[in-house]
Amino acid sequence: MALILINNTGNKHNNYIRQAKYVNNPHLDGMEEDILYHFSLSTKTHDLPQMFGDVKFVCVGGSPNRMRTFAEYIHEQLEMPSNTADIKDICEGTDRYSMYKVGPVLSISHGVGVPSISIMLHELIKLLYHARCRGVIIFRIGTSGGIGLAAGTIVITDKAVDSFFRPQFEQVVLGKVITRSTELDVDIAQELLQYSSELTDMPTVFANTMCTHDFYEGQGRLDGALCSFSTEEKFEYLRKASKAGVRNIEMESSVFAAMCHVCNLKAAVVCVTLLNRFEGDQISTPHDILMEYQQRPQRLVAHLIKKRLGLIS
Amino acid sequence: MALILINNTGNKHNNYIRQAKYVNNPHLDGMEEDILYHFSLSTKTHDLPQMFGDVKFVCVGGSPNRMRTFAEYIHEQLEMPSNTADIKDICEGTDRYSMYKVGPVLSISHGVGVPSISIMLHELIKLLYHARCRGVIIFRIGTSGGIGLAAGTIVITDKAVDSFFRPQFEQVVLGKVITRSTELDVDIAQELLQYSSELTDMPTVFANTMCTHDFYEGQGRLDGALCSFSTEEKFEYLRKASKAGVRNIEMESSVFAAMCHVCNLKAAVVCVTLLNRFEGDQISTPHDILMEYQQRPQRLVAHLIKKRLGLIS
Repeated sequence: MALILINNTGNKHNNYIRQAKYVNNPHLDGMEEDILYHFSLSTKTHDLPQMFGDVKFVCVGGSPNRMRTFAEYIHEQLEMPSNTADIKDICEGTDRYSMYKVGPVLSISHGVGVPSISIMLHELIKLLYHARCRGVIIFRIGTSGGIGLAAGTIVITDKAVDSFFRPQFEQVVLGKVITRSTELDVDIAQELLQYSSELTDMPTVFANTMCTHDFYEGQGRLDGALCSFSTEEKFEYLRKASKAGVRNIEMESSVFAAMCHVCNLKAAVVCVTLLNRFEGDQISTPHDILMEYQQRPQRLVAHLIKKRLGLIS
Repeated sequence: MALILINNTGNKHNNYIRQAKYVNNPHLDGMEEDILYHFSLSTKTHDLPQMFGDVKFVCVGGSPNRMRTFAEYIHEQLEMPSNTADIKDICEGTDRYSMYKVGPVLSISHGVGVPSISIMLHELIKLLYHARCRGVIIFRIGTSGGIGLAAGTIVITDKAVDSFFRPQFEQVVLGKVITRSTELDVDIAQELLQYSSELTDMPTVFANTMCTHDFYEGQGRLDGALCSFSTEEKFEYLRKASKAGVRNIEMESSVFAAMCHVCNLKAAVVCVTLLNRFEGDQISTPHDILMEYQQRPQRLVAHLIKKRLGLIS
């Protein structure tokens, strides 16, 4: 099967033109070897251009099992000739992250929270650079808590905002705080929104996503080991978030948007809501329904990939 | 084998007296069910007092494989009669965290970074509360980058400090920043320091540990996908850290110390250094040597557990 990259406007290889390099670090070129420690890969022990040179789509999500399932799903969707049992964890030398490659698609787990995904992104972006990849699009396909949305709704992120509803990410560099934009690719987001209407069971909104560094106190949950606020104070905070255009809360989008933006990587965040936070804090939905919800971002992104590869019109 | 808890001074059951409860949340008692979602456990579906009531020591670390290895090691050290193959992952219903129980010892993985360990700690502290545990001691046994120390040195944390060398942790609660103390248990730290001298290949210091939210820019590494500073600026920052008493850098100690302190849980942080950051950024030490380094915190903490259980004098 020949996979040809077709961009938004139908022009082949247009993405190869005007492609700035992904890394932004003058020190890298002087290094004899680059060990991607948390992937258990290295420029000396692995032929990264040979292994990854054809990657065009990267999909990332928190859970290793979910990203394995996604790799199997995309394998089926792209009608790959090989057996799904042959899909191996490329990072099997470590248990920090899992990585699967299916044709031009890379599926990687990133764990929970900003620090965990940030390590993965540093090493992924270096991997794409070393492998001389071009025109790559990256998607975070995740789960989240909804703000005033029915469980199972997909939120395509407009702006990734912090706990104060600001569209920025604060990074500490050598003990100084610097602020980065969390701008995402508008065209990809609009393309996803359009495709969502072509699929069944895919209720979708385009809205702001709040990224917190904590699941319990930081998201106004009343059910953590620690809680110092009242039910009314919780609802007041959620209403404020809603007024700021926030429709879901998760824990990775801000650094994901910020790093991809600085590194010239086109990025989108597609998360499903597992509950409506105005109705509760605990995730008590039955397992099989949660599983179906988690497949929704996968199905939507797979649909875009198939369109871009010219497999469906 | 009878395991009897003996405290520091040799008095049995002294820890059971004056034990404040671990959780600090008035809402919990009104809940009909508590789903510990990221552990795939619940007060309704699991008999938590029966499963966990005898837990006296909790050991946590980033990697699931390492915490499985620790469970097998402590099984051998406590001379448990059962087979190590019978040690099952209690959280097998999820891949977020792994949890193993060996007699009075619980071994749990927490992933990478403050947000990831904070979710685990919320649910662990609620688990200990629901299971009516008392007199529990918790250890983080991890890896870190060293500041002016030979690789393989153990750092028992005095103060967990942030990127600005302050012994505090900033938590955002409903959009407001609150500051928590990162005080750890001095007696446990001193006990560990004393035992380190009884063991071979256990170079140990008692010093400050810096907790960052990023592995690359946040720790002054020159080898990330992004780097905007010079080699000299990196060394200047590391020298400042050293002057502030910091001897190692990792990514979880501050919230670990802060949450355990607020929740009346005696806590210690024991990390081995994998490299000396004054000599480089990449972790290039051979795999088998890294494996031996990673066992050092495990051996030290296992030694304390055996002392406390009266298995060695």
